[in-house]
Amino acid sequence: MDNLGVVFLSEVVGTALLVLLGCGVVANVALTRTKGFNGGFLMVTFGWGLAVYAGVIVAYNSGAHLNPAVTLGLVASGATEFGSGVPVNALSVFTYIGAQMLGAILGATFVWLAYKQHFDEEPSPASKLGVFSTGPAIRSYGWNLVTEIIGTFVLVFVVLAFGGGRQGEAGGLAALGALPVALLVIVIGTSLGGPTGYAINPARDLGPRIAHFLLPIKGKGGSDWAYSWVPVVGPVIGGVLAGWASIVLLPVLT
Amino acid sequence: MDNLGVVFLSEVVGTALLVLLGCGVVANVALTRTKGFNGGFLMVTFGWGLAVYAGVIVAYNSGAHLNPAVTLGLVASGATEFGSGVPVNALSVFTYIGAQMLGAILGATFVWLAYKQHFDEEPSPASKLGVFSTGPAIRSYGWNLVTEIIGTFVLVFVVLAFGGGRQGEAGGLAALGALPVALLVIVIGTSLGGPTGYAINPARDLGPRIAHFLLPIKGKGGSDWAYSWVPVVGPVIGGVLAGWASIVLLPVLT
Amino acid sequence: MDNLGVVFLSEVVGTALLVLLGCGVVANVALTRTKGFNGGFLMVTFGWGLAVYAGVIVAYNSGAHLNPAVTLGLVASGATEFGSGVPVNALSVFTYIGAQMLGAILGATFVWLAYKQHFDEEPSPASKLGVFSTGPAIRSYGWNLVTEIIGTFVLVFVVLAFGGGRQGEAGGLAALGALPVALLVIVIGTSLGGPTGYAINPARDLGPRIAHFLLPIKGKGGSDWAYSWVPVVGPVIGGVLAGWASIVLLPVLT
Amino acid sequence: MDNLGVVFLSEVVGTALLVLLGCGVVANVALTRTKGFNGGFLMVTFGWGLAVYAGVIVAYNSGAHLNPAVTLGLVASGATEFGSGVPVNALSVFTYIGAQMLGAILGATFVWLAYKQHFDEEPSPASKLGVFSTGPAIRSYGWNLVTEIIGTFVLVFVVLAFGGGRQGEAGGLAALGALPVALLVIVIGTSLGGPTGYAINPARDLGPRIAHFLLPIKGKGGSDWAYSWVPVVGPVIGGVLAGWASIVLLPVLT
Repeated sequence: MDNLGVVFLSEVVGTALLVLLGCGVVANVALTRTKGFNGGFLMVTFGWGLAVYAGVIVAYNSGAHLNPAVTLGLVASGATEFGSGVPVNALSVFTYIGAQMLGAILGATFVWLAYKQHFDEEPSPASKLGVFSTGPAIRSYGWNLVTEIIGTFVLVFVVLAFGGGRQGEAGGLAALGALPVALLVIVIGTSLGGPTGYAINPARDLGPRIAHFLLPIKGKGGSDWAYSWVPVVGPVIGGVLAGWASIVLLPVLT
Repeated sequence: MDNLGVVFLSEVVGTALLVLLGCGVVANVALTRTKGFNGGFLMVTFGWGLAVYAGVIVAYNSGAHLNPAVTLGLVASGATEFGSGVPVNALSVFTYIGAQMLGAILGATFVWLAYKQHFDEEPSPASKLGVFSTGPAIRSYGWNLVTEIIGTFVLVFVVLAFGGGRQGEAGGLAALGALPVALLVIVIGTSLGGPTGYAINPARDLGPRIAHFLLPIKGKGGSDWAYSWVPVVGPVIGGVLAGWASIVLLPVLT
Repeated sequence: MDNLGVVFLSEVVGTALLVLLGCGVVANVALTRTKGFNGGFLMVTFGWGLAVYAGVIVAYNSGAHLNPAVTLGLVASGATEFGSGVPVNALSVFTYIGAQMLGAILGATFVWLAYKQHFDEEPSPASKLGVFSTGPAIRSYGWNLVTEIIGTFVLVFVVLAFGGGRQGEAGGLAALGALPVALLVIVIGTSLGGPTGYAINPARDLGPRIAHFLLPIKGKGGSDWAYSWVPVVGPVIGGVLAGWASIVLLPVLT
Repeated sequence: MDNLGVVFLSEVVGTALLVLLGCGVVANVALTRTKGFNGGFLMVTFGWGLAVYAGVIVAYNSGAHLNPAVTLGLVASGATEFGSGVPVNALSVFTYIGAQMLGAILGATFVWLAYKQHFDEEPSPASKLGVFSTGPAIRSYGWNLVTEIIGTFVLVFVVLAFGGGRQGEAGGLAALGALPVALLVIVIGTSLGGPTGYAINPARDLGPRIAHFLLPIKGKGGSDWAYSWVPVVGPVIGGVLAGWASIVLLPVLT
């Protein structure tokens, strides 16, 4: 398989696993009669963090972006090559993002299958949509955007720092594999997830929203397209800003 | 001791420890008057995840399957050798699975001894059975089977990925020993455990169910044999599918 | 300083830190008006597990037993040398255990100082004692002893396995330092802590009980000496059984 | 950039990230209508612990003090050089502490922006201040000081132990990078955070308090300057005591 094929498959499978386990924990906490019902926000943050862990493990060969904000942040940082020796260009960027979107739709579909009976018995259309996509605690597109920008900036900036400078030499962080990213996603959830539910990943939000729109979910309501641009645009801005900041700051910091 | 003897002893001890600590956390959360009563689903997922951690530590020489779905997934993946240099054949497969079943029965017996007073004072027969074996939140054999297949697929597929390709070369994940599997089991619990309580291991479910049937537990009810095939058949299907998928996907992904 | 002096100081400081952070989390969860009041059993298990983590870090040179059950388990396992090159004999065993007891009394005293106002305002003498020492959920000396034996057996057996065989060669677990023991203590708490509060360490229980007896704690009640032998005798039996079991099993398992 | 410039930038960015994620989790738990409202003290401790993790990752080149108590503890320990080859002198100490204060003010400002709508809708001025700075559960300047001294002593003493003796040779802890400090901060929170909310860092408390004073937060109350010296003086004393203790103890212990 050529390198772009590897990237495509890797990002599809990794993002599908990320969304299956990530949206899965929301299903467990939010849908009626599950064993984890009302399990608390800390459980949600561990579920999403370790979902990223699992996704990164299986998508090693593409560099495990699993997130258009990471891909675009790498572009903004001036990287010339992605994982698997693929050069940074329009075709490879579209391959990454297309694969991430497809994987997210697939992952969300498996969540629906795994929790089929609980979706059928859940009375609230809002709870059903909440399994798939984020929504703001207090709707205010401008401030919701700010929150998503800050959260995604932290994600992409620290991810770029993982690979930087003396840490790489010491081999310290590399030895932990996917764990640092998982810990980072947990803390972004605990600490910046309060206002918008921390999409911080356009594919993680838009892909499942499309799945919600397409799937024959019993008693579903609308897919809240009015909000759907916020968790796409915010993370893209945050990721690109982090990429730019990394050019200036990371050579000094790490 | 010959290699099959090592495997047998290793899988018995490892699975016994896994089930003692795994079913133990359910006892702590579910039985009346324990110190962890109503401790929440997140505690259950940490208990099971770290139970796997401890079990894997002590069963190093057999490769620490501790789960027939892992053993059969390895067979399906085309492996020619298990841990400890044992060739894959009918005898070794039966040795693994037999040891896992025996270990699970032993582990469940120790849970009963550790929580003896709390079993005696617990009024609900369903809570007693729930310590030993899983049961569905909404009974629907077909969909319960789907949930168990998806959960076990994730378990076995990612476990197979841990050993794969460039990650092995870098020595990254190996350096973490049993921790990656523990984290994986935690997230499968948080995210896919809602509908069926995530057996994802035929020995973990059937062994304790046999123990529940045999032990003189005060005030126990039936062992719900009608459901007992689901957490056996589902994980076997999920594990085999993961083994097959690994043949195609893992050389590309990792 | 000679080697026994190193051992003594190391075990005093390590056990003091272990008990300060371990009993501290119970104070935070149990005493009135603290910020962590009613924080849940999972928080207690993380507090104790990471208390062990911190204690092990600072007691590297003595091998960080911090627990007479570990010391006696090592003796039972046939070890000829403890940490820091100290030979196993009556003098070194008494040095370890004496230092652990002294450290535990010191650590408990600092917990009292750190939570002084909350002890003063706490109305329940039982809650005050509960910060220092364990007590059974259902009092039954025989069964409480069984629970402590099982819990300590798991602790000491797995700790002995950490150092065993091929894992040591691969350097895998060693690279994690104190973390494996911390994870093990967390899971013993979540899974076997329900009936007796998992002393699993005679010094951790008897030392703070002596501190409770001696300190001028406002409004304190009795120190429950009737129960005090259980969390001493149980862990000693469990540790020795684990040491013996390790002779037979660990060469095969790991 | 010269070495003091590196230190300044590194400590500003690292402390800003630490405070953004640390105060962020308090905002999520304390402010009305967030998704993590009433998420529990364990979530707060994980948020702060992993906030330290992220901050340490991005401040590698300055040695990631992020805390005047660590800087002054290193001075007291007799260190002759900080991270990045900077000699210990008045200028470098002021550079570290000044950068930490500035970073903390910046981080707190970003928390306010990320949670802007929730600050606006929060009715309680005390909850707003609580996001920025710590306050005692029971006000008693003397005992609150004792608690902060004990907590910070544990932090700085164990951090100094991480680098010590045989552990460094084995490379064990270094391989974990920022994780040990994160685990340590989690357990200080669970176990010693009950009475005062564990500032254990003058910059973490005073910086956000200044931000609270300066920012146009809707409906805010006073900044509780009467208490503000406790979480500055206590951590400084604790850190210096730990530095002195490390001179005597760490050569023996580790």
